[in-house]
Amino acid sequence: MLNNTPPANQLLVIFGASGDLAERKLYPSLFKLYQRGLLPESFAVIGVSRTVYTDVLFRSHIQQQILNLEQDKAEVSTQLNQFLQQLYYVHFDTHKEEEYAQLRKRVDELLPTLGDTDRILYYLATPPLMYEIIPTCLKAHQLTTAQSDAGWRRIIVEKPFGSDLASAIKLGDLLQTIFSEPNIYRIDHYLGKETVQNMLVLRFSNGIFEPLWNRNYIDFVEISAAEMLGVEERGKYYDSAGALRDMIQNHLLQLMAFVTMEAPANFEAESIRNEVDKVFMSIRPYTTPKQIDQSVVRAQYTEQTLDGTQLKGYRQEEYIAKDSTTETFVAMKLYIDNWRWSDVPFFIRTGKCLPEKKSEITIHFKSTPVQLFAGQCSGSSCNKLTIRIQPDESISLKFGLKLPGLGYEVKQVSMDFKYNSLQETTLPDAYERLLIDAMEGDPTLYPRSSTLQTSWRFIDPILCHWNEKGAEGLCFYPARTNGPEEQLLLLHEPLSFKNADFADTPQKCDIT
Amino acid sequence: MLNNTPPANQLLVIFGASGDLAERKLYPSLFKLYQRGLLPESFAVIGVSRTVYTDVLFRSHIQQQILNLEQDKAEVSTQLNQFLQQLYYVHFDTHKEEEYAQLRKRVDELLPTLGDTDRILYYLATPPLMYEIIPTCLKAHQLTTAQSDAGWRRIIVEKPFGSDLASAIKLGDLLQTIFSEPNIYRIDHYLGKETVQNMLVLRFSNGIFEPLWNRNYIDFVEISAAEMLGVEERGKYYDSAGALRDMIQNHLLQLMAFVTMEAPANFEAESIRNEVDKVFMSIRPYTTPKQIDQSVVRAQYTEQTLDGTQLKGYRQEEYIAKDSTTETFVAMKLYIDNWRWSDVPFFIRTGKCLPEKKSEITIHFKSTPVQLFAGQCSGSSCNKLTIRIQPDESISLKFGLKLPGLGYEVKQVSMDFKYNSLQETTLPDAYERLLIDAMEGDPTLYPRSSTLQTSWRFIDPILCHWNEKGAEGLCFYPARTNGPEEQLLLLHEPLSFKNADFADTPQKCDIT
Repeated sequence: MLNNTPPANQLLVIFGASGDLAERKLYPSLFKLYQRGLLPESFAVIGVSRTVYTDVLFRSHIQQQILNLEQDKAEVSTQLNQFLQQLYYVHFDTHKEEEYAQLRKRVDELLPTLGDTDRILYYLATPPLMYEIIPTCLKAHQLTTAQSDAGWRRIIVEKPFGSDLASAIKLGDLLQTIFSEPNIYRIDHYLGKETVQNMLVLRFSNGIFEPLWNRNYIDFVEISAAEMLGVEERGKYYDSAGALRDMIQNHLLQLMAFVTMEAPANFEAESIRNEVDKVFMSIRPYTTPKQIDQSVVRAQYTEQTLDGTQLKGYRQEEYIAKDSTTETFVAMKLYIDNWRWSDVPFFIRTGKCLPEKKSEITIHFKSTPVQLFAGQCSGSSCNKLTIRIQPDESISLKFGLKLPGLGYEVKQVSMDFKYNSLQETTLPDAYERLLIDAMEGDPTLYPRSSTLQTSWRFIDPILCHWNEKGAEGLCFYPARTNGPEEQLLLLHEPLSFKNADFADTPQKCDIT
Repeated sequence: MLNNTPPANQLLVIFGASGDLAERKLYPSLFKLYQRGLLPESFAVIGVSRTVYTDVLFRSHIQQQILNLEQDKAEVSTQLNQFLQQLYYVHFDTHKEEEYAQLRKRVDELLPTLGDTDRILYYLATPPLMYEIIPTCLKAHQLTTAQSDAGWRRIIVEKPFGSDLASAIKLGDLLQTIFSEPNIYRIDHYLGKETVQNMLVLRFSNGIFEPLWNRNYIDFVEISAAEMLGVEERGKYYDSAGALRDMIQNHLLQLMAFVTMEAPANFEAESIRNEVDKVFMSIRPYTTPKQIDQSVVRAQYTEQTLDGTQLKGYRQEEYIAKDSTTETFVAMKLYIDNWRWSDVPFFIRTGKCLPEKKSEITIHFKSTPVQLFAGQCSGSSCNKLTIRIQPDESISLKFGLKLPGLGYEVKQVSMDFKYNSLQETTLPDAYERLLIDAMEGDPTLYPRSSTLQTSWRFIDPILCHWNEKGAEGLCFYPARTNGPEEQLLLLHEPLSFKNADFADTPQKCDIT
């Protein structure tokens, strides 16, 4: 969305309306947009799910969900009641094509009430196995083609977009027979976060960062997303996915593309997505099993007792096989073979059950060519730019200055900018941003099919190799520790990294 | 001083011991050094002045002066009493050569008590007319030559070092016939300030600033020292000096040299002073009166009533001629013609009776070559690095980031580092630093004779031109306003500068 006028009138259809994502994220985000006057003038949302609700009951259910999230329940009640009037609900079995007639009927009733509207946005907040069924059924009921030139039918699908290259191509091909590529929105909620988008603004609205943003001045880059929780109730999905698919193939590689892409010709979505594609095309592929073993570390958390609390190991979690080899932690080193980044290592790291929830990008600049001062920092982390994505969004720059007093002793200090120092303190939720973008037809923050495929092309050999090796080479780390020590083998400066971030986790497996 | 061991045993002789500078700065700084264990193990200070004191009375007078500056008088009393035992006093008329015999006698008594000491540091905290008389008289009494190879005689002189090129050369020559150049310390207290020295550390201990520190990325540089007070009781000196001599010829040009010099080969004093010299040699001279008129604005403050208080104009101040044309404000634009800085304007500005006391260096970086975002900053001040020298020493970097919310609107924000956030919060006084450096024999922060002469060579034509023009071209500004509007004519972006810093001061004269 490039201005503050609301999108054109439209109808939103949410599949999986009584599911966790819809209740926790989508409806609350829509309400926030409503409060800020950003929803279309004439707008309706049809929720679809198998759970039996009437419109009235569903509204009251959503009302409760939203009120649970609000501090001052009394204050929002009037607005919330108005908002709820736009919500409708249809329940049927979305596996059965014939039942979509009910949706068709509801759409036919509602569309005329929304003014001159021929625009429908479908949101598939469902398990991935429905990504083929729902579009096919919608098509069978003529719900996928606009009736006029001004109209459109768009679809938002949640990740995972396939589980490997072949399935991603198959899913992409199917969706593209029903919706045209510009109308397919693959949501990556990571890209909806303020600090992620700020990466582009920071780089391209300032004259001072870009000259330093290359192999001449950058020593290495870290991109990491640490989670404190285990798999929780997502075991069934997670055990078939793993950290590489769940976090790296999409979120973290996309994020890396924003960190590394060239300046786009303009700020149109396709210009940006073209630059993102170029990054993905330049990632140096792993071409041998040995390269994979030397560049990617996978691990699984194990049970441990911490401060008297018994923490489950991954294999003790619900729905997880007792001999599961699914990775809950991945650390990888990769290179981008282009003029800007050649030979600059990128360390990408994610894991569950780590000591804290923290996602950040750290640019480690090279040190000065000579050390003129006593106590001057040497090595690669003297100057660091850290962009914290969560929690506590912030930007900080580490640099050396003179320690007050005699002589010229250098002390490393930080300049900080914290987002919460802005007057507008509440950052919009990623889903608010992404929903409004899709309503507006701005796909900047949605990965393109070509990008996804290039990404899978890089990831596939790793999955394949791990599949062949099974448990061999899988490392382990006690829950709430910093992941396996083996990740240190990836680093060219293992000691400094180790001191900063890693405790003495015992070595559990050999990788060479 | 490059380490924390105290300097070798020595004797310090302060001329002007009962004067304002000695009482307010020198003795209190010596006490601070004493408290921190940085004075020589065996050390004595002989104060010389015309005022009649015995050692005991002088000590009690200095005790009072220092206690006036201390928060917790009880806490320091023991240390202070010990410190005072090192102070001695001789009173005589320093204009008369024969009276120096008294000093000679005192030196001869004291030196043997300081262990194996043949080291005397003279500090001339006197009016400049004494700079010729005192060294000559010292020489006549054989007080300027060491008696052994390990010994030395050093002299510290306070500015002004001459009032133009000819007098600077004359003074330099005279001093050099008595003391060798390495033993002459011309004190510039500006260079003793933490943030000034930090300029060198900031630039040369970080890999990220130096690549941007040149004409490719910097649009212009501002160096300014604004004072809130008028001439106070310094009228007699000031009316013969003026702002150009008092602030720019020494402090601000030296400061500019630290901002602009090349990286020295090492951190030895002569290496740094060589680089400073190179900057001075590269300053583009003003070669015609017209160039001076177009590049340098001079002005004088006039009386005004502010919030009911009557503020004196410069010509109403004590000791100032009613038709004085001495400038109390100077704004100048200059260029440094070398590979790094060619065509980058430097705006140097100083004045008395301005709205606030503030000295800072601001590096204005060029804006991005293209503006990709709505609301993106353009022009030259989007990225600014500001190094605040006083008050509240700090460093801040202004940059654009994404305004939280939809779209990609850019907001200019600042990352800040404040010196007082360091644990060691009290910055040492400039005089502490400079005194210990001279005791140690480290002249890094003392301008060299060659530099001074090059600086006067640049300044002389301006003084000469103003002298010829008299009152013609002198501008005026009401006390406690931002100086004359004419300074805006120097700037290539007058409007942005004006909005930021200048109120609607009425135009008072024409310069073309």
